[in-house]
Amino acid sequence: MSRTLVRDLSAHVGERVTVYGWVNTSRLQRKMQFIVVRDHTGMVQVTNKRTEPASEVEETFERVPTESAVKVTGTVVANPIVKLGGVELVPDAVEVVNAAVSPLPINDQTGIDQRLDWRFLDIRHPARQLIFQVQTTVEAAMREFAYGEGATELHTPKFMGTASESGAEVFKVKYFDRNAYLAQSPQFYKQMAISGGIDKVFEIGPVFRAEPSFTSRHATEFISIDVELAWIDGVEDVMSFEERMLAHVLAAVAEKHGEEIRELLGAEVVVPELPFPRIPMREAIELLTDQGWKPEKVKGDLDPEGERSISALVKERFGHEFVFITEFPAGVRPFYHMRAEGNPDVTESFDLLWKGIEITTGAQREHRYDVLVKQAEEKGMDLEPLSSYTNSFRFGTPPHGGLGAGLSRILMVMLGLDSIRETTFLFRGPNRLEP
Amino acid sequence: MSRTLVRDLSAHVGERVTVYGWVNTSRLQRKMQFIVVRDHTGMVQVTNKRTEPASEVEETFERVPTESAVKVTGTVVANPIVKLGGVELVPDAVEVVNAAVSPLPINDQTGIDQRLDWRFLDIRHPARQLIFQVQTTVEAAMREFAYGEGATELHTPKFMGTASESGAEVFKVKYFDRNAYLAQSPQFYKQMAISGGIDKVFEIGPVFRAEPSFTSRHATEFISIDVELAWIDGVEDVMSFEERMLAHVLAAVAEKHGEEIRELLGAEVVVPELPFPRIPMREAIELLTDQGWKPEKVKGDLDPEGERSISALVKERFGHEFVFITEFPAGVRPFYHMRAEGNPDVTESFDLLWKGIEITTGAQREHRYDVLVKQAEEKGMDLEPLSSYTNSFRFGTPPHGGLGAGLSRILMVMLGLDSIRETTFLFRGPNRLEP
Repeated sequence: MSRTLVRDLSAHVGERVTVYGWVNTSRLQRKMQFIVVRDHTGMVQVTNKRTEPASEVEETFERVPTESAVKVTGTVVANPIVKLGGVELVPDAVEVVNAAVSPLPINDQTGIDQRLDWRFLDIRHPARQLIFQVQTTVEAAMREFAYGEGATELHTPKFMGTASESGAEVFKVKYFDRNAYLAQSPQFYKQMAISGGIDKVFEIGPVFRAEPSFTSRHATEFISIDVELAWIDGVEDVMSFEERMLAHVLAAVAEKHGEEIRELLGAEVVVPELPFPRIPMREAIELLTDQGWKPEKVKGDLDPEGERSISALVKERFGHEFVFITEFPAGVRPFYHMRAEGNPDVTESFDLLWKGIEITTGAQREHRYDVLVKQAEEKGMDLEPLSSYTNSFRFGTPPHGGLGAGLSRILMVMLGLDSIRETTFLFRGPNRLEP
Repeated sequence: MSRTLVRDLSAHVGERVTVYGWVNTSRLQRKMQFIVVRDHTGMVQVTNKRTEPASEVEETFERVPTESAVKVTGTVVANPIVKLGGVELVPDAVEVVNAAVSPLPINDQTGIDQRLDWRFLDIRHPARQLIFQVQTTVEAAMREFAYGEGATELHTPKFMGTASESGAEVFKVKYFDRNAYLAQSPQFYKQMAISGGIDKVFEIGPVFRAEPSFTSRHATEFISIDVELAWIDGVEDVMSFEERMLAHVLAAVAEKHGEEIRELLGAEVVVPELPFPRIPMREAIELLTDQGWKPEKVKGDLDPEGERSISALVKERFGHEFVFITEFPAGVRPFYHMRAEGNPDVTESFDLLWKGIEITTGAQREHRYDVLVKQAEEKGMDLEPLSSYTNSFRFGTPPHGGLGAGLSRILMVMLGLDSIRETTFLFRGPNRLEP
């Protein structure tokens, strides 16, 4: 018999249907068997009365282990005292399509590391399923917005011939008789697309970072959302694109999943007001210093504590979850960020913080070949491996700027989770390449 | 002044506007200058009358090299004898935003290899721009279809801990104190997602193949479209998903770009009828053998010539551009393809050919742990590195199947181009890692 989804059962009261799913729990009483079957749309109670002699259904339910894949056929009965949707299924046939081994290697008390070892079992939990449904909505809404702005979907190569760009550590690949490197961002390639006359570039794809970071916000492989916009008047155009995109995304998520996110994850999805507050780095540092903040490491930048504090301050003063920190000093930004006119110590760049966590870096890029080369030299870059990049600025590259954002971070902050390990399907870190 | 797109000019006759774009051509006559400016939406003729003394505009146009990025301000004038949209721009100001070096390193006669060296210049050509606009439409339509079927957008890791699966050659990466391998397909991971209760998996992302192939259809890195469907009744469900998805995609492309594809690329986008023809491999080989075909290499499979011939035959008999070749012998399919009930020599699998070119491989997968392990052993696979994969079948994996399709091949066939080098933004092959 063809499948009926659990969420549709209440429309089939009195009918005989088949549900496909997993045994979520089974409560075997003396006179009754209560089996909860779960599919990707919900859970239903299967209520089976024991008989003398025992029916085939009863015998199957008696021994079927939790998390086995089953098909249960029966009649949908309205029962207001049943919590799961007010209906139950009275079975007349059950097929164990694929039995699970018992006991299961993880349960509700298992820690994150062992959960990741058994990630396919872990994500069967409805709260985890929800994360990837939200991810789907997030990406769909981003694309809807980007397409509406005239963006072109692009796929830049992950193999690079040279280990270039920002000096971030890159992974080396044996590539026939030479080496290749894995792209730590599509930065150079999306700029080439701008030089190629593509007006607005949009890409969602993996990037690779070889830093041995073990924080809750870092991975060796993650999904980057990349945007690059041609013919901008300034970095403000890039920030405007991003804040409008995120407001669009959050409105879509709130509408489609808001209630379920509240219920299963205890998080509130707030659709932000536009524009987001903007605070120049200089002012941010002054504000924080007044509060007694002392940066841990780099002068002119915010450390994670600084990011949390400035977000808290913005939340308090403006009631806003987001803040653009702008005008980063040139010393902490890559050579290709454009400098402010008349103030070469400051870049036309920004980070976007959301509830204290950096989710985006963006900037207007330097599109003038001579200035770009000068800035690279000042940073002590080796120009030779950069030549195929710098050469692309010699043939009429328009002014442009863009941003890169981490998908798993956005989901982590949105859903109030404490690590990107939770929002990545199969996490990859220095110590984790499995499953 | 803010930007007016070229395609919108005819709505601004009599108004003063600014166009941002590139100098496509300049024809400098004794009394007149005709500069064609191109943006991503079209081309416009800028018509400048010489004066005595020469205006600033005239002097700029006199020396601006082709492909420089310019902003031209002027009045839109209706002129029915002008080919480009029946309007021209009479300029009063021009700004060279970024001059191009002259001469350009490529022109209309340049061969593909040198064109790829200067890909950012190459893709400025409207016919090339169109490819990536079509790509955007293709992906949007695929997602629209997949979301409508209830699919979840997933990103599987590209780093693998072991070089597993099909025996296809994989790239090795130095990964801290061990090695990682680049995923040659999301196969195992999307099956894990199915084990994880995700009902329909959809992914568009890069895969990596280390075979030193130099054909027009192979790359070391390409974008794979991956689908995996849970709870299928058979491989027919997978073929049905794909043919409906492709029909949806081709309808979207035909509507949005059909005319331009005809004009710029000389190709006709045909929306296919459903269902696509299906021919079991055994019959395909009989049909071809009758025609005198002798396979080059593998028994029970089609070589490229066989693929072209069977497609031609189907086109002739059924008038259809597509054909599913089904029931591949087990010997030419990976161990995880399900075998036909009662006929273990045949798999529940298919390839999809389009105009003679294979664009997809698909199958129902073996979801029963014992059978899967037996099939792996029969193929001589080492089970130990496969354990995190095979283990995921011990906890209630439902029946499932899916497909993988190459985006650049689909675009190549759709647009009548002769190599995926044309339909990949920055191609990667054994000899090409730049730009």
